[in-house]
Amino acid sequence: MKSYHVAIAGATGAVGTEFLKLLETRDFPIASLKLLASERSAGRAIPFMGSKLHVEQLTEKSFEGTDIAFFSAGGARSKQFAPAAVQSGAVVIDNSSAFRMDPNVPLVVPEVNPEDIAWNIGIIANPNCSTIIMLMAVAPLYRLSKIRRVVVSTYQAASGAGAKAMQELIDQSGQALRGEKVTKSVFPHQIAFNLFSHNTKIDEDGYNEEERKMINETRKILHDDQIGITATCVRVPVLRAHSESVNVEFAERRPSLEQIRSAISQFPNVRLVDNREANYFPMPLDATGKDETLIGRLRYDLSNDHAIDLFVSGDQILKGAALNGFQIAQEWIKMRE
Amino acid sequence: MKSYHVAIAGATGAVGTEFLKLLETRDFPIASLKLLASERSAGRAIPFMGSKLHVEQLTEKSFEGTDIAFFSAGGARSKQFAPAAVQSGAVVIDNSSAFRMDPNVPLVVPEVNPEDIAWNIGIIANPNCSTIIMLMAVAPLYRLSKIRRVVVSTYQAASGAGAKAMQELIDQSGQALRGEKVTKSVFPHQIAFNLFSHNTKIDEDGYNEEERKMINETRKILHDDQIGITATCVRVPVLRAHSESVNVEFAERRPSLEQIRSAISQFPNVRLVDNREANYFPMPLDATGKDETLIGRLRYDLSNDHAIDLFVSGDQILKGAALNGFQIAQEWIKMRE
Repeated sequence: MKSYHVAIAGATGAVGTEFLKLLETRDFPIASLKLLASERSAGRAIPFMGSKLHVEQLTEKSFEGTDIAFFSAGGARSKQFAPAAVQSGAVVIDNSSAFRMDPNVPLVVPEVNPEDIAWNIGIIANPNCSTIIMLMAVAPLYRLSKIRRVVVSTYQAASGAGAKAMQELIDQSGQALRGEKVTKSVFPHQIAFNLFSHNTKIDEDGYNEEERKMINETRKILHDDQIGITATCVRVPVLRAHSESVNVEFAERRPSLEQIRSAISQFPNVRLVDNREANYFPMPLDATGKDETLIGRLRYDLSNDHAIDLFVSGDQILKGAALNGFQIAQEWIKMRE
Repeated sequence: MKSYHVAIAGATGAVGTEFLKLLETRDFPIASLKLLASERSAGRAIPFMGSKLHVEQLTEKSFEGTDIAFFSAGGARSKQFAPAAVQSGAVVIDNSSAFRMDPNVPLVVPEVNPEDIAWNIGIIANPNCSTIIMLMAVAPLYRLSKIRRVVVSTYQAASGAGAKAMQELIDQSGQALRGEKVTKSVFPHQIAFNLFSHNTKIDEDGYNEEERKMINETRKILHDDQIGITATCVRVPVLRAHSESVNVEFAERRPSLEQIRSAISQFPNVRLVDNREANYFPMPLDATGKDETLIGRLRYDLSNDHAIDLFVSGDQILKGAALNGFQIAQEWIKMRE
């Protein structure tokens, strides 16, 4: 089996750290690993496989000899450095939103549209975390019967805004408990014991960027420009798993709950958590640190006989980001062998 | 102006305490006030208007001479003692779910259906908190144009489960921050840094009791058995204000956002918080301690041209419970004068 020279751009961030953990703990054919970050983090020593790797500064020359480059350093750095990585011969798996809607870049959830990896010309985009987690529940239903419309409300963890946002939730919670003034630096509003509309720019239609991503990316991944989606994205005081309340309206007669349960149980990397007797359903704490996306609260919508309701929780840093990118790399390798 | 002999059953609970505060700080014609609670709390002294009131044990004989009895001691105690209060000549304003769906009992949000107070025969029911907060946003829209269907997902505060649940959120948050084992007594699952499906019994259709209340109570209050509602009720680590993400589908063409904004600004006791430029929308911390229900994120639903989306936050203990009951009493007095 061939092995690969791997680089991580943004190696010191929340998602970069998780890429490193995945490369260390899962079966992945690494020939070498290069850790890249901004000048500020360059020089830091990071333990890997019993030795230490030094973080190098990310430049256009960082990718000579690299086969696979994981990018998780924000959209601006992806735009600046991904083309150089491709030029050097690497395949870029980009976690930012920079190239997701580029028609020349496949946008991939490996359980949903792995075939799109085949037509990449150097960059493969990792979707938005909320989109991935929703699709892990919606895709098995979509395969049963065409979906006309999705109404989704999210309960998004602090991790979506990075490691500093997670720390801010912890710090603010302590301040609030001690009756101190709550200080803000990452989020525009207090996140501890509060929640707020996703803090991205609002467009002229009143949707924020996160909601727009869920709409556009879902259409691209499902290859369905007709599917209607309305999303309301909300940050909640949870550390690292996103949850979503999803109403799915089918174009034709809805499948039975038995068919839906069966489709979900046959779908890879999801777990049905739907115990009505015990009142046990998907929770972010249960999803934290897990590869599987948890799906439950499955029921017929009493207000529309084409629709069903469900609730989903998934680890934002794993399936919502690093794990999905890692799986893209695994699929990419499989296709070349 | 006549003054009234008032009793509070459940005076030591989260909602009872708020009733007491409202009677103390707002203009209300009290002749006397009697505080009633279970045997466990009887004898406790509670400050009121500069003096101290002693909590008496709630019995069937507690209501002699009472004109207005606020009940907030749980459904079982309402069922047991409200008929005795009515027998004694009091009007009962009941915060429990015991009589809400009784066809002989009006279920009232004073801004929405005050006229229903007139046909009471002794008991007037206060709706479920999530129902009230949703209706404060939906009722002004309903007056503009008939609504066919509502898809709602809630973000419910700990206060909905009482004062002990609020303390449990605080205690668990401290335990989690200190890395200690999190202890549970009120909620079945950890609430700190987590969220979970509302912990009420699930019926054969897969809806929990809270969701079923939102469906049935909304129909009764709006006098519309045809309105379709699907609700997903979720507890979040917030102390005392509920939020809700609401998708509203009109039966005919949807009103314009201008018409909707105007209808909301003319509706009493709501406030439009909808600043797209500043990314400032309703938040539970802003709604806490406020009479007004906050409404925002108003936008046309891009997936359905009959529908709009909005987000609402309201204080669960005030408008969701005690304040609404207090307003019912004010309306009841007004109708008799």
